[in-house]
Amino acid sequence: MNKVRRIERIIALTKILSDMPGRLFSLGHFSNLFGAAKSTLSEDMVTIKESLQQFGLGTLETVSGAAGGVRFIPSRSEESINELLNELADKLAEPERIIQGGFLYMTDILFNPSLMVQIGEIFRKKLGHLNPDYIMTVETKGIPLALMTARAFDLPLVIVRQGSKVTEGPAVSINYVSGSSKRIQTMSLPRRAIQSGAKVLIIDDFMKAGGTARGMIDLAGEVGVEVVGTGVLVATVEPAKKLVEEYSALLILHDVDQYTKKIDIRPAAMALQAN
Amino acid sequence: MNKVRRIERIIALTKILSDMPGRLFSLGHFSNLFGAAKSTLSEDMVTIKESLQQFGLGTLETVSGAAGGVRFIPSRSEESINELLNELADKLAEPERIIQGGFLYMTDILFNPSLMVQIGEIFRKKLGHLNPDYIMTVETKGIPLALMTARAFDLPLVIVRQGSKVTEGPAVSINYVSGSSKRIQTMSLPRRAIQSGAKVLIIDDFMKAGGTARGMIDLAGEVGVEVVGTGVLVATVEPAKKLVEEYSALLILHDVDQYTKKIDIRPAAMALQAN
Repeated sequence: MNKVRRIERIIALTKILSDMPGRLFSLGHFSNLFGAAKSTLSEDMVTIKESLQQFGLGTLETVSGAAGGVRFIPSRSEESINELLNELADKLAEPERIIQGGFLYMTDILFNPSLMVQIGEIFRKKLGHLNPDYIMTVETKGIPLALMTARAFDLPLVIVRQGSKVTEGPAVSINYVSGSSKRIQTMSLPRRAIQSGAKVLIIDDFMKAGGTARGMIDLAGEVGVEVVGTGVLVATVEPAKKLVEEYSALLILHDVDQYTKKIDIRPAAMALQAN
Repeated sequence: MNKVRRIERIIALTKILSDMPGRLFSLGHFSNLFGAAKSTLSEDMVTIKESLQQFGLGTLETVSGAAGGVRFIPSRSEESINELLNELADKLAEPERIIQGGFLYMTDILFNPSLMVQIGEIFRKKLGHLNPDYIMTVETKGIPLALMTARAFDLPLVIVRQGSKVTEGPAVSINYVSGSSKRIQTMSLPRRAIQSGAKVLIIDDFMKAGGTARGMIDLAGEVGVEVVGTGVLVATVEPAKKLVEEYSALLILHDVDQYTKKIDIRPAAMALQAN
């Protein structure tokens, strides 16, 4: 192919790498693609990394050795995370979100793709050290959030189903009691969705008593996989004692008052500082 | 701020624009961010656009006028689309995917984030001219695909629920007969999920008789929104007459033979050429 100008190559590299967060690309791959020497590409990577870091847009990580290469790691500054979570808390505190029964309407936020991309990257940053092999959630409202988290980790998503669906083959099921409905429900996982021995990170939109997360942890145990962590977008402050011992919440819901129409929801970090 | 080198600015611009496909950014916004003149930024955009196009990574679109700006449009070459769909067809033809009842196990593919990013971009390219305001799907397996399509369009996602969920407020429900199960089922849409008068594009993972898509179209009619198109990842060749008049399928499933373990699935374009 014709010689590619450095600036054109760097634009293409930036796009390809940031399009697949966490995916390892070998320098040989890019060397073929652009007809450039690996040493030249290494210099390109330094330039890209510096620029991404300078503007808080993430970073590149180099893995050395024969199976090595370079990958994009999404990363946001604490400042931009706090800003986003504060905006989100303000949005969720709009009085018209209160639904009969004291529920909070969150669907428009949960199904907003570009918002969920950002929340997924925040979970990647906060929980990346847990090194999961899969991201797991339960249908339905947490799926977009969990999918975008899986994207930020470059991992497959596993969706626990309510009831057992015929089109996914043999499944393992358990009964659990959801904290909000207090009813006995069934959740199931197709046998072939996950390999036993794997490590999973649970991601969900909302946690009250933690019954649903507890159910997922028990189900994971039944199929021989280990839950290494649980991340939720919103957790309620009460009950303080949840059915799961450890979890990370980005926002804490303190109160929904159906009569005064006041919603008290705050970023988790701020809530902790207030204690 | 310090003067930003051109190459650093271009890397950051590439990342910011391609991170939010379809999102319009004003030059003024970037001018503040980088301390660069709009004319300089315009030149940067030309360079970025040319490079993205050269490598088949999408393009930039400039919107002129006071409310104007620039946005990234994901776009793949026909060649790379065909390559991806052929790979996908090969993967889906693996004999171990056959489940009792003649179903095809597709969950691992449907819940693979980076694959769904690509399929979403293909739908954006093939159905972008329909100019929808929302992407609509029904729970559960089509959600990742629909979400990534919504991302490629920079549109909100609307998820039709099976049954009526208390936490989303008043909902409109209809009964429908799913082609695969032949059972009467209920689907519902929260009143506040979508504005009446809006145009929606339906995206789903699988279509056999089209009963589910038909249900969504009827439900859309009940809430006063117009369905401008239907896109599915896989459609079965039989029944040839579906309950929806027009739809776009990326792959056509010709046959699943439970006895010989042969699966015949082909990209839709190739299937059409063969007729």
